[in-house]
Amino acid sequence: MAGRGEIVAIGSELTSGLVAEGNAAAVARKLLEAGLEVSAITCVGDEPAAIEDALTRALSRSAFVVVTGGLGPTDDDLTTQVAAAALGRELIFDPEFLSHVENFFRSQDIRVSRDMRKLARIPEGAYFLDPEGQTCGYYLEQDGKLIFFLPGVPAEAGRLAAEKVLPLLMESLPDLAVVRRRTLRIFGLEEFDISELVETVRRRDVGFSFLPVFPAHLLILMAKGAEANEVEARLAEVAAEVRRRLGESVYGEGEESLEAVVGRLLRERGQRLAVAESCTGGLTSHMLTEVAGSSDYFERGLVTYSNRAKVELLGVPEDIIERFGAVSSECAALMAQGIRERAGADYGLSVTGIAGPAGGSAEKPVGTVWFGLASAQGVATRQKRFRGTRPDIKLQAAWTALDFLRRQA
Amino acid sequence: MAGRGEIVAIGSELTSGLVAEGNAAAVARKLLEAGLEVSAITCVGDEPAAIEDALTRALSRSAFVVVTGGLGPTDDDLTTQVAAAALGRELIFDPEFLSHVENFFRSQDIRVSRDMRKLARIPEGAYFLDPEGQTCGYYLEQDGKLIFFLPGVPAEAGRLAAEKVLPLLMESLPDLAVVRRRTLRIFGLEEFDISELVETVRRRDVGFSFLPVFPAHLLILMAKGAEANEVEARLAEVAAEVRRRLGESVYGEGEESLEAVVGRLLRERGQRLAVAESCTGGLTSHMLTEVAGSSDYFERGLVTYSNRAKVELLGVPEDIIERFGAVSSECAALMAQGIRERAGADYGLSVTGIAGPAGGSAEKPVGTVWFGLASAQGVATRQKRFRGTRPDIKLQAAWTALDFLRRQA
Repeated sequence: MAGRGEIVAIGSELTSGLVAEGNAAAVARKLLEAGLEVSAITCVGDEPAAIEDALTRALSRSAFVVVTGGLGPTDDDLTTQVAAAALGRELIFDPEFLSHVENFFRSQDIRVSRDMRKLARIPEGAYFLDPEGQTCGYYLEQDGKLIFFLPGVPAEAGRLAAEKVLPLLMESLPDLAVVRRRTLRIFGLEEFDISELVETVRRRDVGFSFLPVFPAHLLILMAKGAEANEVEARLAEVAAEVRRRLGESVYGEGEESLEAVVGRLLRERGQRLAVAESCTGGLTSHMLTEVAGSSDYFERGLVTYSNRAKVELLGVPEDIIERFGAVSSECAALMAQGIRERAGADYGLSVTGIAGPAGGSAEKPVGTVWFGLASAQGVATRQKRFRGTRPDIKLQAAWTALDFLRRQA
Repeated sequence: MAGRGEIVAIGSELTSGLVAEGNAAAVARKLLEAGLEVSAITCVGDEPAAIEDALTRALSRSAFVVVTGGLGPTDDDLTTQVAAAALGRELIFDPEFLSHVENFFRSQDIRVSRDMRKLARIPEGAYFLDPEGQTCGYYLEQDGKLIFFLPGVPAEAGRLAAEKVLPLLMESLPDLAVVRRRTLRIFGLEEFDISELVETVRRRDVGFSFLPVFPAHLLILMAKGAEANEVEARLAEVAAEVRRRLGESVYGEGEESLEAVVGRLLRERGQRLAVAESCTGGLTSHMLTEVAGSSDYFERGLVTYSNRAKVELLGVPEDIIERFGAVSSECAALMAQGIRERAGADYGLSVTGIAGPAGGSAEKPVGTVWFGLASAQGVATRQKRFRGTRPDIKLQAAWTALDFLRRQA
């Protein structure tokens, strides 16, 4: 099909497994939003033969190629030299671009080094994507196809893909299909359950992809067609039916995070929240405060890790902890009420559990977590048992706490 | 060379950019630790032609192939069917494996669905990697080369790679080179500075890779040879010299995180820590409590987001906040002293700043953060200005707080 391209990601950190490839993903996402599909992503190390092979092969079988990585100033960054040789072009030095780069670095208080000259040397006939020098990256035309070279930093690669690569490709590749995607965000169901619940909603003209993004699941609906309104209507119909089947387990759509949804609910009602957390160790508060403007509804958070902190800061009576344990419905309820009252907040949310790997018992194994939610209506508690590593358990517990608030509030 | 293989990662979520490829990275890391290099990672979508092309090409040019993803029970998981067809093999159903899978799922309280039959159907002549059915995955020999099929979940793929794939490959590929890697973890220097500081340490027989893992940098040293002792000695010599050049900016080695280093220092001295954080919103406490056993030295954390919380919970006088602002050396010092005294801890660590995007001023722009560290020796403060998004600023601030403690403690 017309719009299919390939991405070649370069860097030995990729093939050696030091980092998961993130640039190609950032670029592919931007391209697909405009109807440009990527048929393959090839990661190769910083080796001339492998880079050349991957580049020429990608060029031979696709409508365009995006190369990411290996544009930096250090010696192991080989992309530009190898590409120039493979494409039979000289390297041309652009003093004007260099002075832009140096000025930009100075404005950011980054020291300018002589290695930066390398950033201003690109294959003959290529054009810089950002002539102002804020990021390296360039493109050229070869055999009637566009090849883009982007830096190996996901945020920069994604931005250049959206702002520079896409417009150039849209112009050079006419008759692109309209592609639309809707992402439903789901928490509290297993993949099998989701799959079964939506099974009869599936239809040929809407793609369903299930994507676990621990501890949540995404259901991505995709539709293609010639006309935007029709494609969007088709997607909307399916999305509405999926939402009916999955009910409250769908916490949001698109890019909206669980903490953003919770924040939106609180803000809409002018309510304020305070958190007392033990086993999650600050993660619940951290998630809430990732949202810009969260100070409007997040009053305070206490990480009452020790029992002493629970007694002193939340007023949980010592004998309650002795009798029922810090991981108990009683303690969770008192923590939630204590933080609500002391903070003067509308909601008090508490988490207390055993994140492990030590501290479990037969009765309360690692992963046992109690949650409390106090409001003007009183206090509710619930218990969950999570599996996994310590970070896994913390993450599931913090999500469950926020989801508890979302569903009750 | 003898040990070079390729990885083929399958899944439309990869080529559409919904997720960054993590399975191949997990596998490649395990392989390289045993001297098995990966020359390319190819990601293709869930499309028969693309899967077949990637698989046969990888098989034709490398010593072994690891395929990840597309083994699941749902319809869009095509790897097994396509591989069987490409390799000219029938699919064989193994009822015993299915009953193991079902028992395992039941033991984990996961509902068993009929789709799971698919997991027990593999190409003729293939062997399950985990016959007990806890994970899917199998291998077979084709044209004298081993091909492994692993599930598309990084933790499982990594575990199978280490426990099953490696021993099988080591047996089938003799004369592997000894490869050793050492990772130095650096915080507080820019890549250019690191690169210049270590420039004269570089030598031909030790590979240097610089890897930004925001907000830290990794310097990965790699050496190859015939004999383990010699390779390790060569690496040790270079690592020691790098450490001399970079000094305290090297906070750790290998997998050890900054929070684990801080925890180790506190534990060694039997000291306890309490944290009062504002703009980091719980992230500092969250990082500290990611470490198993952190309750031994982490007493409590307060997320004093509102000024009222700073006054009530830390005893910061209201007139100090009015006179100097909550983002000031004075407030940071009083927060650190307040949390130290009230928690009865050896160290009180504070963070107060402007995470943005709103709340900045000409005098105190977004990204301005003050840190305080109180101990028996008194209180010290420092200021930093960070750039980036709100999450970026929170992350840099939490790291800087922990690093402040590491360097001073």
